[in-house]
Amino acid sequence: MRRSRDLVRPALVEAVGRLHPWTGEMAAYGLGWADTAGTPDPGGSEGKGVRQALAVLGAEAVGADGADAVPGAVAVELVHTFSLLHDDIMDDDALRRQRPAVWKAYGTGPAVLTGDALLAQAVASLAEVPGPRTAAAVRCLCATLTALVSGQAEDLRFEDRPWSGPGAVEPEQYRSMAEHKTGALLGCALALGAILGGAPDRTVAILDRAGRHLGLAFQAVDDILGIWGDPATTGKPVHADLRQGKKTYPVLVAMAGGSRSAYALETLLTSGRRIDGATAEHVAALVEEAGGRTATREEARRHLDAARRALREAALTRSAAQELDVLFTHLLDRTW
Amino acid sequence: MRRSRDLVRPALVEAVGRLHPWTGEMAAYGLGWADTAGTPDPGGSEGKGVRQALAVLGAEAVGADGADAVPGAVAVELVHTFSLLHDDIMDDDALRRQRPAVWKAYGTGPAVLTGDALLAQAVASLAEVPGPRTAAAVRCLCATLTALVSGQAEDLRFEDRPWSGPGAVEPEQYRSMAEHKTGALLGCALALGAILGGAPDRTVAILDRAGRHLGLAFQAVDDILGIWGDPATTGKPVHADLRQGKKTYPVLVAMAGGSRSAYALETLLTSGRRIDGATAEHVAALVEEAGGRTATREEARRHLDAARRALREAALTRSAAQELDVLFTHLLDRTW
Repeated sequence: MRRSRDLVRPALVEAVGRLHPWTGEMAAYGLGWADTAGTPDPGGSEGKGVRQALAVLGAEAVGADGADAVPGAVAVELVHTFSLLHDDIMDDDALRRQRPAVWKAYGTGPAVLTGDALLAQAVASLAEVPGPRTAAAVRCLCATLTALVSGQAEDLRFEDRPWSGPGAVEPEQYRSMAEHKTGALLGCALALGAILGGAPDRTVAILDRAGRHLGLAFQAVDDILGIWGDPATTGKPVHADLRQGKKTYPVLVAMAGGSRSAYALETLLTSGRRIDGATAEHVAALVEEAGGRTATREEARRHLDAARRALREAALTRSAAQELDVLFTHLLDRTW
Repeated sequence: MRRSRDLVRPALVEAVGRLHPWTGEMAAYGLGWADTAGTPDPGGSEGKGVRQALAVLGAEAVGADGADAVPGAVAVELVHTFSLLHDDIMDDDALRRQRPAVWKAYGTGPAVLTGDALLAQAVASLAEVPGPRTAAAVRCLCATLTALVSGQAEDLRFEDRPWSGPGAVEPEQYRSMAEHKTGALLGCALALGAILGGAPDRTVAILDRAGRHLGLAFQAVDDILGIWGDPATTGKPVHADLRQGKKTYPVLVAMAGGSRSAYALETLLTSGRRIDGATAEHVAALVEEAGGRTATREEARRHLDAARRALREAALTRSAAQELDVLFTHLLDRTW
């Protein structure tokens, strides 16, 4: 990931530099490059750069130079930052990577505007690539933007739906949301690398699919950590997702099980009682007893396997395919 | 404008239909097609459709079929709606076309999301056009999106700047903001029509310029109406812009004049006194005495002339050029 960051960074800096200075300053804060005073932030608030690495490896995997993927890498990093900025507003999340979210630091209006600026610049980065693949690359990004918005809409709507009975969120609906919200952009990163690297449509589609499965596996791990993760590692309070009443896969799949624990879980969650402290501990235990943790592990494993199978299915250069495989494993290699 | 609305409407309906149903419902409300219950709104809350008409006429003016411009017309209408939704959040404007703004009707988060959905769909509408001009069309839209964001950033920043002394907004800076915020999208509408109609780059550039001048003229008229407009016609309170402390062209150019009225105006505006009722009346009179109204009329006239000159400069089909000329005049034909 460091290699791709070094490769992509100059173009990313240039893209942010093309924004209006004020939105550029907020974008630099949102990217973790600077604090609110605009001074460089060495505190490691920067994202890991997973998406740009996937784009670069996507190009290399189809036998092209990683540098060919740079406009795609820039686009996916900017879209990722855009979605963090806007999602934090919608989800009322005041913290992002242990710092105030952009809307908290600069105000809601300016954060909306900066997200818009990033989105426009993301599309521009791709549209300016000369050559016959430009339209295909822009279409790929557009499909992902539509998926991201749908995923966020689904997620926001889940909040208003009941835990059980008619209208309850089904595990399959959760999976669809996660594919839109997390999988689509990872798939797009790999696909853009392949498109810009000149790969045939079939290879592009397979890499897109690999990235989607990776995203679903990643989300499943995230959901496990959101309940059972160590606050020292996750940076979030213990049982964070349960306290927020989030309808995540482990809980949904546990409730769908029909066991006695599932029934106890349903009774507790539909009681309207506030979930904190000892109650959260109890809910977590019930979810685990009802098989929610195991089923989510299996979900993650299944999608990681599917992602790897996809890599083997496409005719990829060996070294890049190996690097992708290592990256996939590394991404999921958190204590879950 | 009715003709182009009829031509574009099916594609616009289809584009909105491709959104997630929830964002689609909010988009339909934002477009003035429906009320918050989703029932068709015959109340005339719909926009005039200036931008789609410019796109259609842009194609016809270069000898193409107006239908060729439809994806461009859809894109500019969606971008316009996106910018209204997000700008109303940033400007804290609760009313739009005499109805609650989308953020007021559905909440800030959902309005942000709907704007994002519209923006993504706008780019998608263009990116899906088959043919060699797709990339050029997308680039044109991206440049406009960047301009819109810059214009909005400039406008938001004007609020924090002083009325006089160092850092005061100069009339030229206001003009730049208006070109970004209003001119760019009108220029883009004409340019997209021309691009999709297969026009050479030179013609595209001239039509883009015509649209920008039209936008500047339109904004100047809007600024006159914002101070001296009849509330019955504008739907806004008398002296609306003065009461809101908006730094518009008539006031800025009046203050730059150096007359005794300009000095009195400066004293009043920098006093920090709240501008309402009789004070707003007095400020309006001072702006007029200091020549602000006349200079803004001249500004509008100058840009309308420049827009018309541009039309004559390009080799356009006669009937479409005439229709454009009529449309330009009609747009500025409000009582100012």
